[in-house]
Amino acid sequence: MLKVGLLGAGRIGQVHAVNIAGHAGSTLAAVSDVYTEAADKLAAQYGAVSTSSDAILADDSIDAVLIATSTDTHSDLIEKATAAGKAVLCEKPVDLSLERAQACLAKATATGVPVMIGFNRRFDPNFAAVRAAIEAGDIGKTELLSVTSFDPAPPPVSYIKVSGGLFRDMMIHDFDMANFLMGDAPVSVRAVGSSVVDPAIGEAGDVDTAVVTLTYADGRIAVIKNSRRAVYGYDQRVEILGADGLLQAGNMLENTVSKSTVSGVVSAKPEFFFLERYMRAYAAEWDAFVQALAGGTAFPVTLEDGIAALAMAEAATQSAKTGQAVTLSL
Amino acid sequence: MLKVGLLGAGRIGQVHAVNIAGHAGSTLAAVSDVYTEAADKLAAQYGAVSTSSDAILADDSIDAVLIATSTDTHSDLIEKATAAGKAVLCEKPVDLSLERAQACLAKATATGVPVMIGFNRRFDPNFAAVRAAIEAGDIGKTELLSVTSFDPAPPPVSYIKVSGGLFRDMMIHDFDMANFLMGDAPVSVRAVGSSVVDPAIGEAGDVDTAVVTLTYADGRIAVIKNSRRAVYGYDQRVEILGADGLLQAGNMLENTVSKSTVSGVVSAKPEFFFLERYMRAYAAEWDAFVQALAGGTAFPVTLEDGIAALAMAEAATQSAKTGQAVTLSL
Amino acid sequence: MLKVGLLGAGRIGQVHAVNIAGHAGSTLAAVSDVYTEAADKLAAQYGAVSTSSDAILADDSIDAVLIATSTDTHSDLIEKATAAGKAVLCEKPVDLSLERAQACLAKATATGVPVMIGFNRRFDPNFAAVRAAIEAGDIGKTELLSVTSFDPAPPPVSYIKVSGGLFRDMMIHDFDMANFLMGDAPVSVRAVGSSVVDPAIGEAGDVDTAVVTLTYADGRIAVIKNSRRAVYGYDQRVEILGADGLLQAGNMLENTVSKSTVSGVVSAKPEFFFLERYMRAYAAEWDAFVQALAGGTAFPVTLEDGIAALAMAEAATQSAKTGQAVTLSL
Amino acid sequence: MLKVGLLGAGRIGQVHAVNIAGHAGSTLAAVSDVYTEAADKLAAQYGAVSTSSDAILADDSIDAVLIATSTDTHSDLIEKATAAGKAVLCEKPVDLSLERAQACLAKATATGVPVMIGFNRRFDPNFAAVRAAIEAGDIGKTELLSVTSFDPAPPPVSYIKVSGGLFRDMMIHDFDMANFLMGDAPVSVRAVGSSVVDPAIGEAGDVDTAVVTLTYADGRIAVIKNSRRAVYGYDQRVEILGADGLLQAGNMLENTVSKSTVSGVVSAKPEFFFLERYMRAYAAEWDAFVQALAGGTAFPVTLEDGIAALAMAEAATQSAKTGQAVTLSL
Repeated sequence: MLKVGLLGAGRIGQVHAVNIAGHAGSTLAAVSDVYTEAADKLAAQYGAVSTSSDAILADDSIDAVLIATSTDTHSDLIEKATAAGKAVLCEKPVDLSLERAQACLAKATATGVPVMIGFNRRFDPNFAAVRAAIEAGDIGKTELLSVTSFDPAPPPVSYIKVSGGLFRDMMIHDFDMANFLMGDAPVSVRAVGSSVVDPAIGEAGDVDTAVVTLTYADGRIAVIKNSRRAVYGYDQRVEILGADGLLQAGNMLENTVSKSTVSGVVSAKPEFFFLERYMRAYAAEWDAFVQALAGGTAFPVTLEDGIAALAMAEAATQSAKTGQAVTLSL
Repeated sequence: MLKVGLLGAGRIGQVHAVNIAGHAGSTLAAVSDVYTEAADKLAAQYGAVSTSSDAILADDSIDAVLIATSTDTHSDLIEKATAAGKAVLCEKPVDLSLERAQACLAKATATGVPVMIGFNRRFDPNFAAVRAAIEAGDIGKTELLSVTSFDPAPPPVSYIKVSGGLFRDMMIHDFDMANFLMGDAPVSVRAVGSSVVDPAIGEAGDVDTAVVTLTYADGRIAVIKNSRRAVYGYDQRVEILGADGLLQAGNMLENTVSKSTVSGVVSAKPEFFFLERYMRAYAAEWDAFVQALAGGTAFPVTLEDGIAALAMAEAATQSAKTGQAVTLSL
Repeated sequence: MLKVGLLGAGRIGQVHAVNIAGHAGSTLAAVSDVYTEAADKLAAQYGAVSTSSDAILADDSIDAVLIATSTDTHSDLIEKATAAGKAVLCEKPVDLSLERAQACLAKATATGVPVMIGFNRRFDPNFAAVRAAIEAGDIGKTELLSVTSFDPAPPPVSYIKVSGGLFRDMMIHDFDMANFLMGDAPVSVRAVGSSVVDPAIGEAGDVDTAVVTLTYADGRIAVIKNSRRAVYGYDQRVEILGADGLLQAGNMLENTVSKSTVSGVVSAKPEFFFLERYMRAYAAEWDAFVQALAGGTAFPVTLEDGIAALAMAEAATQSAKTGQAVTLSL
Repeated sequence: MLKVGLLGAGRIGQVHAVNIAGHAGSTLAAVSDVYTEAADKLAAQYGAVSTSSDAILADDSIDAVLIATSTDTHSDLIEKATAAGKAVLCEKPVDLSLERAQACLAKATATGVPVMIGFNRRFDPNFAAVRAAIEAGDIGKTELLSVTSFDPAPPPVSYIKVSGGLFRDMMIHDFDMANFLMGDAPVSVRAVGSSVVDPAIGEAGDVDTAVVTLTYADGRIAVIKNSRRAVYGYDQRVEILGADGLLQAGNMLENTVSKSTVSGVVSAKPEFFFLERYMRAYAAEWDAFVQALAGGTAFPVTLEDGIAALAMAEAATQSAKTGQAVTLSL
């Protein structure tokens, strides 16, 4: 039974708490948060201890930590936790600074303690099935990937200012999805972006609508589309063309009901946002973490994966600004 | 916080245990089962007491019981539990004997203690959305209901012999669905059935494929189709035509992936069986039970509803044997 | 090149004219109609002669006739045309009287001239693909057929009074579909019907909503649902369950566009009525007629098929009135 | 009644012949082709004259010509036909040389005779419905367009060598679709392409897989994906995100049948290629041509539209070679 300390008791921390406590192979032992009330409340619900992150990292009975704190603390906490010998599952992104993330990787690697990065979408049953089908050879050699990833509504501009920008904050998931499905890193990145949804986002120095094209050494191509606003819900789809066919993963809908009237046929919208859509993915992600530790196998998503996606985000940010392609060597 | 005793620790009891323990308004206090090992194990998992059903019913600290034992014990346990003042959620069917169920209703009603029957499909988000749309007037006056309900594979013939037959064991859910969606009880029942899936089922005195037509006093019609075998998975759909349109609720699929090749476009199968398909429905059912008790409101499915469905099953059984329509006055 | 006389220049006659004139193996030589203006106009459009039906039947240069006149003239014209040695494609139904139709069959058979009945739905690419899949063994032994067949709006009550009733006028297509897909004739018919759409239809002695259950000697079952009103368009679907799977044929939609907004996802309605939905079927039907004559092979739908469907309609009419099952021996 | 001369009796000429002859407002008067046998055969089928293109252009009784000859003759024939006062519907592309096309435009414009370019996809009922919905304001201000356009199989390399390349030969349709749906011309073009489908295509100097990103003055973005090979059929889809929702137009399928077995749910493939998919579009295109001439209204697709798409193709060709964005001022 894995004894787990949860660092961060906010919205995403609460999602992880359910999965940690509900998993047959793990137990939620301790919770910390800069807002001690949030930690107290969450700890009470699951019979865990509410304490500080330092105390959790110093507690020899804790086997693993899940880092669900704010992004600017990720690198520090990964370094401290691996130094303390705790297995780590850390929410994305590793850091907003590629340089800082690479330094973190160096330190963490030196400890020999494994770190998994929480790219939850790899564990979505739909995207996981696409990957499995590719690996099974169902569509032959892959040629052209398309990722559609729209949020239902933009976050407040105050958040956007500290988010690192759309490419680091939002599209980073899609960069990892490209790496996951293409099975390789791209050699060039071309990005265009604008603030067609809300000029205030442009004034804050960011974009809200963007298209990124990735090219691969063997001639394959991937394209990622992002928008901060899809009023009909969280739109998360991929499709990949191969020599022998096409794989598509669609949205999960709120229900399967359709209504046919003189006005047309109306069916349900996609699940509203990431907590609804990726509920099953978060549980599967936690299970993968526990299984890997129990079986002594490698994590399915590593700190290196987190850094690769971050490098792509940085390249896209640069390309969108300069209008030039950026070459990568990952 | 509702303190709950769970009677029955089998497959369906385990599903309920998750929901009882995971609900913010209820706690699993005690578990019983004729196989004490099963009760011990389930109780241990949730920090509950493993004991006898009599002890649970005698325990003044227990507020409510969930009856998930074998069908032949339902009437007795409902009577004992209501006599002991415990609110009851009992799995369907109430009984295989309509007469016995009616006696149980009389006794339970006399105690004034409310009983809810576990017609879980009413809480499926798809079917619930159909009912809500009907009540919202989306399709105007309803005219013609069609229920498709196929199991993935027939149970063993040994089970079929004690099941009460397809109409009481399987179609009883669909009779309740008809009552739920038509908002009224039918006045006549016509049934045809055969053992076209497996002659051994016919030799055991039952049918495995059946169609029942229900007529209503105001001229509306409902038709229910059942098969014990749909090799592609659990097929659970309804559609209802009204003056202003059609509502359809479809299957929930294993995932949203489709694969297009020279052979055609392949998508996922329906969720395999009732535990997968109705996972969310069981949680919503338990929530409705807890909410009704907390709010002092009526249960959304009553013992009377259980008896109405049973009477329809009995009429269908008779009609399939005689070839004649059977008149009902519910 | 088949020289064809078209008897009847009304709405359905005009559909056939396009196909006769547009087919590489046939030419429209002559047209007749009781309204000579209609015949004149249609003949002019295709460079054909406008004349009387008697003149067409007496014209030795005419190889075949297509009978698209009113139902009460079908039997007479089939008899005359076969006596004159013309190959015949006659619109359904053969007659409203089963007795009269059987007499017609006897006379036509005596001439040795082949007659095809225009059950156009057999040539719909969707239903034809279902039949082909059954014959290919894709779902193993068939067990349970369901036919959904709703018109967009009821005809005038004045038409209903002379139509022969819903079972002979509308469901006759579905009886033939059952025969087409089940590959056998039923042994019993049970029908319920009501005038829940429009009481005036009930006052005219007919029903507007009906469900018919057919049973087969080997235990298989079919169910047909009809409504005179589906405000969203012409609803024409079949599904058939077999030992190894399920086949479903759905509606053809006006277009493939979907619109996702805060209100839901809206897609197109089914093609509005039979001319739109079965446009391709009528062309394929004519092609089958020409091919069979050219190749000297049997027609895919015979006069006997027309009479079988009519017998089922008569049985259903009787069953709906008496409430009793009616036994058939076809 | 419009008297029409058809220049070109190849595959696409034959498609147009059906529509010209079958339209109530036009008649096929004459056909020409460099292969006189092809012209003879087609003319015979529709009672037209087989002659030379010069003779057609010199015939005062001919009102309009449809140019369906090889691309290298388009500019010359447009110039000659307009000089002769014939209304023109010319197949795309106008020319492979932008300079030559512009010269043609100047000459044709000087005659005052209107020219329509055959971007048939604008008349596809699906894409036309998307445009109509945009114009009706169904999704508010448009923001992000995505066009997916895959051919079932690459043409022979010998054809590719003279085709002008993927951007001029294949993606030109999608450039016009972007102009049609975005209602404006882009200000920049970024293209990436490779020969991942077949290296021989790369050796011939062309690409077989390409992604083009278009940006607009107001910040909107469009992305076009092309592949020369989609083994499952002709894949022709668009989707456009707006402030108030998303519009998607999907493929038209061979039929509506689905088969559910233990292996999954199999449905039909897209219509195989452009003749099947765009059969209705070609008829609607011809109807639009005839209606505009009859009503004295402007053509819905002009020679200028053909030149705009050609300019975009030229820019994309250049961008794919240099790796740089190309600025446009259309």
